[in-house]
Amino acid sequence: MKLVRFGPAGAEKPGLVDADGALRDASALVPDIDGAFLSRLDGLALDDIGALPIVEGQPRLGPCVTGVGKFIGIGLNYADHAAESGLPVPSEPIVFLKANSCLSGPNDAIRLPAGAAKTDWEVELGVVIGQVAHNVRPADALRHVAGYCIVNDVSERSWQLEGTGQWTKGKSADSFGPIGPWLVTADEIADPQALGMWLEVNGVRKQTGSTATMIFSVAEVVSYLSRLFTLHPGDLITTGTPPGVGMGMTPPQYLRPGDRVQLGIDGLGAQGCAVITRDTARPVTAPA
Amino acid sequence: MKLVRFGPAGAEKPGLVDADGALRDASALVPDIDGAFLSRLDGLALDDIGALPIVEGQPRLGPCVTGVGKFIGIGLNYADHAAESGLPVPSEPIVFLKANSCLSGPNDAIRLPAGAAKTDWEVELGVVIGQVAHNVRPADALRHVAGYCIVNDVSERSWQLEGTGQWTKGKSADSFGPIGPWLVTADEIADPQALGMWLEVNGVRKQTGSTATMIFSVAEVVSYLSRLFTLHPGDLITTGTPPGVGMGMTPPQYLRPGDRVQLGIDGLGAQGCAVITRDTARPVTAPA
Repeated sequence: MKLVRFGPAGAEKPGLVDADGALRDASALVPDIDGAFLSRLDGLALDDIGALPIVEGQPRLGPCVTGVGKFIGIGLNYADHAAESGLPVPSEPIVFLKANSCLSGPNDAIRLPAGAAKTDWEVELGVVIGQVAHNVRPADALRHVAGYCIVNDVSERSWQLEGTGQWTKGKSADSFGPIGPWLVTADEIADPQALGMWLEVNGVRKQTGSTATMIFSVAEVVSYLSRLFTLHPGDLITTGTPPGVGMGMTPPQYLRPGDRVQLGIDGLGAQGCAVITRDTARPVTAPA
Repeated sequence: MKLVRFGPAGAEKPGLVDADGALRDASALVPDIDGAFLSRLDGLALDDIGALPIVEGQPRLGPCVTGVGKFIGIGLNYADHAAESGLPVPSEPIVFLKANSCLSGPNDAIRLPAGAAKTDWEVELGVVIGQVAHNVRPADALRHVAGYCIVNDVSERSWQLEGTGQWTKGKSADSFGPIGPWLVTADEIADPQALGMWLEVNGVRKQTGSTATMIFSVAEVVSYLSRLFTLHPGDLITTGTPPGVGMGMTPPQYLRPGDRVQLGIDGLGAQGCAVITRDTARPVTAPA
């Protein structure tokens, strides 16, 4: 099942994409796509999706999940990306948090904040928790996953890596967390470690990879995190990026106003985001 | 005004402490102490607090604010604490995030997770946002603050500083964020930079300080953060700790099961937390 949230920022409705690719309004079925809903996904009677009204037109898509408690990032989780960053392969997952106020829709503009000079892209597999996870073994971890989505882990490198930064500083600006288009339920993803992924800037391929080359698998990441703290339904984990980020190029390349970023992962759809300066952005809305 | 949340974990009710120190049930007045409530604090008719029912007995107090979007920490924000940590005084605020699932009540047990060996204490001034803040100047920043509370920024030093950690890893375990007892509204705190603060372990004084010795003031911190990302009502900022943490002692001292931690800040009340191992903890509940 492909779960979506559609409508104006801050006023999204829950929706489903049916087998024919049509967007249907699921408001009559669920209040929203959030942890409470995801925790009872198995018990839902979704036989009558065909009875839900089809949404006409092409509404904006919002973040595909709301009420995200923790937006957790894993650093350097692809061996080739660690190499291009000039950093050793980590012996255990590098964990950081993105502010959940950075979440945005899959086609919303990436807004460069004032002072940002090295804003970079990172196509990543996002993992959304569906069941409380505390001290779970890797073998049991995937049972706690509700589904998967694309995440662009947008990163201002100067704030992340220079000055007095903890990484979170460069990972958390408003609009630095486009997710979706869909939250694809776990039953539709046969193997989360066999998904091709790509990213282009202005039509030029920058990243080409596969979740097959992750250092720590989704199951290992969920297990590891569940020993640090309890994972709750609606928590979102972004699991690291394959090679091809702008920082690793010679000379480095970063996003500029007017650029367009497109990215996709097998089975999870694609995003397309314009890059603009923050001054031209829409008014600030409540966090998703 | 002193705002509280009382009752069993996960089922707290909103309350107020009146001028006589009596706890009153504010359920009839507000759904909960959260960002939505704090953003309209100025417009509330609170003249009839005396009509609210008094709560009998000594109910558990929960986290004094719920629906916390971002739980933001500032590192090394007291010059003396930077010195005892053997680290230079930062040139700009060090920013990290604590998982909001670590929030707990002011007298709840601090639960040492499996594998934690260097769990430390940090009495800190917590700042709760009441109005959206984006690119605000220091001179305007305090207008965006709803109130203040005590935070114990509990920190597992081995996870924070050793291995592949970003700081967040050692700052985010369940129960590592006792806040309260009260959220004291900003009108009751004449000067947030003139508050004495203290912390004791088993009755022995460990930390004695004052917010007067902060490197970056509350106003400067709020302004700085508002340029990184939008601050929303209900966001909680913990602003750093004065000298006297266990890591800085010779030899270092850390929390052990059976210890008792007490801490307080002028005008904001006091906390008292038992230290227990995680195995003896109450069942995991939804994040506050």
